[in-house]
Amino acid sequence: MKHIGAGFAGPETVVFTVWAPEKDRMTVHLVHPTDRVVSMEKDNEGYFSVTIEGIRAGDRYFFRPDDGTDYPDPASHFQPEGVHGPSEVVDHSAYAWQDQSWHGLPFRDLILYELHVGTFTPEGTFEAIIPRLDALAETGINALEIMPVAQFPGKRNWGYDGVYPYSVQNSYGGPEAFKKLIDACHARGIAVFLDVVYNHMGPEGNYFSQFGPYFSSKYHTPWGDAINFDGLWSDGVRDYFTNNAIFWLEQFHVDGLRFDAIHEVFDMGAVPIWVQIHDNVKRLEQRLGRPLHLLAESDLNDPKVLKTTELGGFGFDAQWLDDFHHALYALLDHDGKNRYGDFGRLEQLAKAYTDGFVMSGEYTAFRKRKFGASSSGIPGDHFVVFNLNHDQVGNRVGGERLSLLVDFERLKLAAAAVFLSPYVPLLFMGEEYADETPFFYFADHSEENLIQAVKDGRKAEFAAFNANNEHIDPFQEITFTDSKLRWENRTKGKHRIMLDWHRTLIDLRRTEP
Amino acid sequence: MKHIGAGFAGPETVVFTVWAPEKDRMTVHLVHPTDRVVSMEKDNEGYFSVTIEGIRAGDRYFFRPDDGTDYPDPASHFQPEGVHGPSEVVDHSAYAWQDQSWHGLPFRDLILYELHVGTFTPEGTFEAIIPRLDALAETGINALEIMPVAQFPGKRNWGYDGVYPYSVQNSYGGPEAFKKLIDACHARGIAVFLDVVYNHMGPEGNYFSQFGPYFSSKYHTPWGDAINFDGLWSDGVRDYFTNNAIFWLEQFHVDGLRFDAIHEVFDMGAVPIWVQIHDNVKRLEQRLGRPLHLLAESDLNDPKVLKTTELGGFGFDAQWLDDFHHALYALLDHDGKNRYGDFGRLEQLAKAYTDGFVMSGEYTAFRKRKFGASSSGIPGDHFVVFNLNHDQVGNRVGGERLSLLVDFERLKLAAAAVFLSPYVPLLFMGEEYADETPFFYFADHSEENLIQAVKDGRKAEFAAFNANNEHIDPFQEITFTDSKLRWENRTKGKHRIMLDWHRTLIDLRRTEP
Repeated sequence: MKHIGAGFAGPETVVFTVWAPEKDRMTVHLVHPTDRVVSMEKDNEGYFSVTIEGIRAGDRYFFRPDDGTDYPDPASHFQPEGVHGPSEVVDHSAYAWQDQSWHGLPFRDLILYELHVGTFTPEGTFEAIIPRLDALAETGINALEIMPVAQFPGKRNWGYDGVYPYSVQNSYGGPEAFKKLIDACHARGIAVFLDVVYNHMGPEGNYFSQFGPYFSSKYHTPWGDAINFDGLWSDGVRDYFTNNAIFWLEQFHVDGLRFDAIHEVFDMGAVPIWVQIHDNVKRLEQRLGRPLHLLAESDLNDPKVLKTTELGGFGFDAQWLDDFHHALYALLDHDGKNRYGDFGRLEQLAKAYTDGFVMSGEYTAFRKRKFGASSSGIPGDHFVVFNLNHDQVGNRVGGERLSLLVDFERLKLAAAAVFLSPYVPLLFMGEEYADETPFFYFADHSEENLIQAVKDGRKAEFAAFNANNEHIDPFQEITFTDSKLRWENRTKGKHRIMLDWHRTLIDLRRTEP
Repeated sequence: MKHIGAGFAGPETVVFTVWAPEKDRMTVHLVHPTDRVVSMEKDNEGYFSVTIEGIRAGDRYFFRPDDGTDYPDPASHFQPEGVHGPSEVVDHSAYAWQDQSWHGLPFRDLILYELHVGTFTPEGTFEAIIPRLDALAETGINALEIMPVAQFPGKRNWGYDGVYPYSVQNSYGGPEAFKKLIDACHARGIAVFLDVVYNHMGPEGNYFSQFGPYFSSKYHTPWGDAINFDGLWSDGVRDYFTNNAIFWLEQFHVDGLRFDAIHEVFDMGAVPIWVQIHDNVKRLEQRLGRPLHLLAESDLNDPKVLKTTELGGFGFDAQWLDDFHHALYALLDHDGKNRYGDFGRLEQLAKAYTDGFVMSGEYTAFRKRKFGASSSGIPGDHFVVFNLNHDQVGNRVGGERLSLLVDFERLKLAAAAVFLSPYVPLLFMGEEYADETPFFYFADHSEENLIQAVKDGRKAEFAAFNANNEHIDPFQEITFTDSKLRWENRTKGKHRIMLDWHRTLIDLRRTEP
């Protein structure tokens, strides 16, 4: 696989590489500290590259295809001025890692904690997270699952509108700050999972089609044309994403990746993209000598996701088990059966505990078809269970956490149900102390059409749930700031009780496995 | 699975069933011999049905959904007046089968013979084939692979524009004549494979969307929206096609099915449609006590197609091995390397002999990507090889057979290469005696827009091959009649020599396995 982007080949010597198989010409346009245009050479796989001397970390550039317009590097490692600005050269060797004694954790031992950088702290940065790590570790949490950090438009976003999968969000602190956070986690025995989005790109700052056929009209997703994993020229796209997985694990010492919505990735090729990624990651794991975990969000209820590649599977180590959430929630909350009409029977929760998938071939009214296949026999450490996650909270009209929906006793029961299950538990940030902050959907686009389209889309989505509340405006800054955790409540009253309850449950889990 | 269409439940008692999950009302409109309208009842799976007394085989009817318009039955067993006319009630129990002593043949022993009913004889009917069966059997041919017979528009078509997958083409003689042909084959030790098309429906007489969501905009095929195998309401669609496979095997005593272009079937469900069909067919096989073969046309070069369902495969017994054709043809004909630019090296032919797929992960210029995975180790009887098939001949501008492209010695060599391979050989009708008749693309649509669209499409397709001949008009009857075999040449001159050569090769194959 080609190394794309801007990479140091020696002191002040940088190789610029970009994949654009159908373009005839490409130049690097250096814009900072000096203005310079350098032609690139194309190879027979469609990659343009050029080695330039006198380049330092911090220098900024664009690529300029045939048409003469400047665009940021699709494999930019940093976008200091946001999605429309120049890309910045990063020297990954400059960071002095302190985690040499970190050897990772087995997946079955994890207590996962889903964290959104922007709303976890008042500052909304990587750096601001570090002072809270001891408290998390002390509760028993040993793995962060960080919502996507790839550069997205503006300053506020869940992360799923990212358009630079190799770039770390500037408003979070950029790549170096992210490394510091990961280093600090490893120093405290905390593993780091990163949420990566390989099923679509965000709508704003999306210049991919200016370079190559990243998208395919053969498949249609909720976000438009699917990523091109099996069409003409797809090798470059496949390598782009495979390299991206390797990039985070290798350059950022990330311990695992959480792959967003793999059911929206379409690939009829003889080697599914998940298998290509799996095989490359497992080779890296051998080389690094620490476990690297591949975790899927899958709405397929298909045991193939978890089967080994030798047995025709995708080889993921684990997947989120949504059915467990639905089965439990439908029993806990009076509104549960309205929201999940196919759930609500006690034997479904029992099946979630014993088999994993509750929907294993049954007809579901929600999908108007038979759904899933049995996962009976798949070991418990292949499933991640939760009462909350960003979707379960954020995709409610009011962004309400379970703590606002059910009484305190039920909330404790819910926590016990998750922590005493045979599966790997996941908390959504703040859940451990029953934070009551909403987690709204928020974004910060700069294009008016897009803003209206997102608003209309959310409205239609909520209409399906018969929600009739006044809609929260995702684009107001207050929607974002209102979603920030009230960490100060953590040690007060019922919040302290819930925190202790989680500590107890985690202890119990550790001592009575 | 529901029995759809019109089926006898007793003497003169017929159950009419049609799947239309999103319709509120449905009636049967009997139009012959008397005019009568009868309301149907809907069940909770979306099937409307009604039992009507006083119905005989030969009675004709339409279904009439909500909107009050008459449409033929999507599961019609006979369309005596073509794709736009009424459907006819068929009594399958009325045919007196004579093949009780037929027990089928193992796949590895087959000598397949692809046959197009319309052009195999001057008459172009099932009945006209029967007198030629002895001659075929005497040559050593023991399996017909009949191009699609599902009702298509007009009188001339390769069969891939069929729109009634349960109906036998009226101009070929309809269902009873097809049974007679199969019975006659079995009497002579000849197995019958039927080509079925589950990847699209033809454009004319396609009333499916008047009944239910048979198509899905999630996937795009060369023919438009894909068949809906995994979306909302897809159970009815899946059962429609699964039942169709069972229908031919059970009611027509067909020995195997050749599934057209499975690479254009999209299904992200946990139980792929091919697995559902496989499981049902294998149960039928147990019940019937004779082998039922599942043969795929696959442009995936994916060993998954042939792997058992237990190992995550689709469970097909065999697939066409196009790579063998390309590797051989590119060496035989001076034009071969132009047509198949990724082929033309001797070691590729050697690989086709030893491994199966030649493209097993290599980059191919034709696809502009790496293609396929290795099929090394898969037994030889899982692949079907050929020098000709309807596509290889008919998709040339001049419809030329290999007999017109290479000299006679090369032609003999080509035959030997196929018959002495470790794979199951397939002949295209007439190939055994080096018939020189072209096999043109022909069709007989009645809609002007469609005719123009087809002409434009063919033109574009040929442009890709840099063909600059004058184009043959697919819609002229002479294009069809010119494609009819010259069977009278069979025993003359070089044709006789080639026929004897095939007899020798087949004998050799039988005696030295």
